[in-house]
Order: sequence, then structure tokens, then C-alpha cells
Amino acid sequence: MKLYDSKTAPNPRRTRIFLAEKGISVPTEQVDMMKMEHKTPEYTALNPLQRMPALVLDDGTIITESIAICRYFEVLQPEPPLFGVGAKEIAMVEMWNRRAELNLLFSVANVFRHSHPAMKELEVPQVPDWAEANKPRIVDFLRMLDAELKNRAFVAGDRFSVADITTLCAIDFMRPIRMPVPEECIHVKRWHGEVSARPSAKA
Amino acid sequence: MKLYDSKTAPNPRRTRIFLAEKGISVPTEQVDMMKMEHKTPEYTALNPLQRMPALVLDDGTIITESIAICRYFEVLQPEPPLFGVGAKEIAMVEMWNRRAELNLLFSVANVFRHSHPAMKELEVPQVPDWAEANKPRIVDFLRMLDAELKNRAFVAGDRFSVADITTLCAIDFMRPIRMPVPEECIHVKRWHGEVSARPSAKA
Repeated sequence: MKLYDSKTAPNPRRTRIFLAEKGISVPTEQVDMMKMEHKTPEYTALNPLQRMPALVLDDGTIITESIAICRYFEVLQPEPPLFGVGAKEIAMVEMWNRRAELNLLFSVANVFRHSHPAMKELEVPQVPDWAEANKPRIVDFLRMLDAELKNRAFVAGDRFSVADITTLCAIDFMRPIRMPVPEECIHVKRWHGEVSARPSAKA
Repeated sequence: MKLYDSKTAPNPRRTRIFLAEKGISVPTEQVDMMKMEHKTPEYTALNPLQRMPALVLDDGTIITESIAICRYFEVLQPEPPLFGVGAKEIAMVEMWNRRAELNLLFSVANVFRHSHPAMKELEVPQVPDWAEANKPRIVDFLRMLDAELKNRAFVAGDRFSVADITTLCAIDFMRPIRMPVPEECIHVKRWHGEVSARPSAKA
């Protein structure tokens, strides 16, 4: 199998951290998004949507979408569980992973894509008003998450999960849009320090 | 348990169709989003994000996000499987469900939220340029999906899955934004006729 990866983008990083937490290593090819390598005919043949990452299996099956690739490996190697175990925990991990995507990761990505000069040729048309509209959502969600993290270790419960991976990648992606975590979100900061110290965070 | 449902919105419909396909019936309370009932203090206590639907378990656990609720029931009652069976099918269902969300359902929702007069007080600020930017994405994705449905029965493969539910709810939500499925997408139209004829589509 081969993983098409891109070192600079938050979604491929989700898959890399997931694999590092599982202790799985996969042959990898780098695709430089800043050089538009994900728009070439070769990569478009793998993923017509021109998004990263993509996993090609030995039988030729192509899996795209970071979380779909993660789920593939969760079934192949269930330990340590990163999508939860049992109906209730599985539902809580799915809920918090989606909350972190819809309210945080996608909002940060929208600010980046619709306001950053580097995205001018990649996001057409850029809609600056949409970038602005997303900024308060980021702050609102981090405040909500802060109240949750006051009472538990990780985003979806007492165990590290894919919801922590999504939230970590989203918060670190706030650097290029120059938004800090609000000062008062001390529980988010505590959590961010802890998950950043895990070896997988360097993946 | 109790499901907080809203008859008019596409996300609660995903959960209703899922439950109908499983043959599961859950006590339900309607929340009228057009009357802002999802913004009341009572509902906000259930879901601070004020999104629908929400499932409250007998032990008080609250599960929000349509797909998280669906996953809860998939574990409790695996048959018929709607998230796939085995690593590869599970990954393909996740991939196509996410592709249908990110490129179709969320694009249709963005057009609706940012251009429909009924959403003026619910989506603040409305960004008309963002509504416009989403329209070509809908057409592009339906053309891509049409090429896929030429060669298989359902969105993610040979079996009906949650990816079909998401795609059906997205396409039917194109009615209030007055966008038809492009004439040339004959395979999408064939598929849409078939899934609309399933009893679950009326849920």
C-alpha cells in the first residue's frame, strides 16, 4: 500500500498522528500542495476531488478522506482504540470528532482558505466576508470546549481518541491565520500542552 | 430514551431514514426550527450548539450529530449494516458519506443558509457571495457521482448505506434552493428514483 501525504496541511496530519498512535508505518509519498501537485493529472486520477491524503491498497482500491483512512486501520488493528469501544463511547467519539470538525477545524480552514494570500490561486473565489464570519465561531467553540475539559482529560472522554487528533490539528492550524487560543481557556491550554507532548504529535 | 427531531431539516431526516431502515422506533419530540425552538434555554441545555437532532439516553447521556446517533444504533443493532462490514467496506462507506457531506450536503446547506430569506435571522451574517460560491460545487459533485453510479447500484458500493441516506437528503434539500439535478446526470436520477421509492424515504 502507499499513503499520499502532504506535510503542511492539517488533514493529512490527522492521518499521520492516528498511525503514530497505532504504531503503524506505511510507505509514503509526499505531495506538495503549495506546488499544486495535488492538481496534477496523476493525482487527480487517484482523487478527482484533488484533496489530500489518499491511501492506495495493494488491490488498487483508493481510500480518500483522512477519517476514512483512519477507520480502515482501526478495523485492521483495533488497539489502542481511537474511535471508542461500545455503543455509547463510539457515539461520543463520533459526536466530539464532528463537533471539532464542523465548528473548529472547518472554521479555521475557511478563515485560511478565504483570507490567506497563499490560497489565492487554490481557493477560487476567495470570499473574505466568509473568512470573517468564521472567526467568532472558533472562539465560541473553544470556550464551550474549555468548560468540557475542566471536568475530563480528553475531548471525548477519559481516553485519547480521534477527537483529540482533530482538535489538536485544528488548534495548531490557527497559527497561519494568527488567531491564538483565548487567554481565559486555561483547560484547553492544559489539554493542548498534554497532547502536544505525546510523541505522535510530531508525526 | 427520547429523540429530539425536526421534520423540516435535512440532518434530522438522515437519522429518521436510518432508523426506518433498521426498523427501530424511538419516542420522539418535535422541535420547530422555524419557530426558533432549537434556540430556547431548554434545548440549548441539551445541545449548546443549538443543532438538531439530539438523542437523550435513559441514563441522561446526550448524543448530538445525526451520524453519531446513527452509529449508536448501528452498534446496538448491526443488521442491516449501514456503515459497511469489514475494513475496506467500512472505509468506502465513510469516504462516500464524507464526500457527499463535504461536497453536496454542506454546499446545499450553505446555499440555503446564506441566500434564503427564511434564514435571515438564523444565519447571522448571511454571506451571499458564499452562497454563490457553493453552487458550482453542487453541480461538479453530481457530475462526478453520475460517473460512479453508472457502474454500481449505490453511492458507496453494491449495498445501500448511510452514504445513500446523506446523498438523498442533500438532493431533496436542493428543492428549497431551486437547483435541479442536471439533466445529463441520468445515473443519479435512476438512483434517486430507486432510493426515493424505499419506504424509509418517507420517514
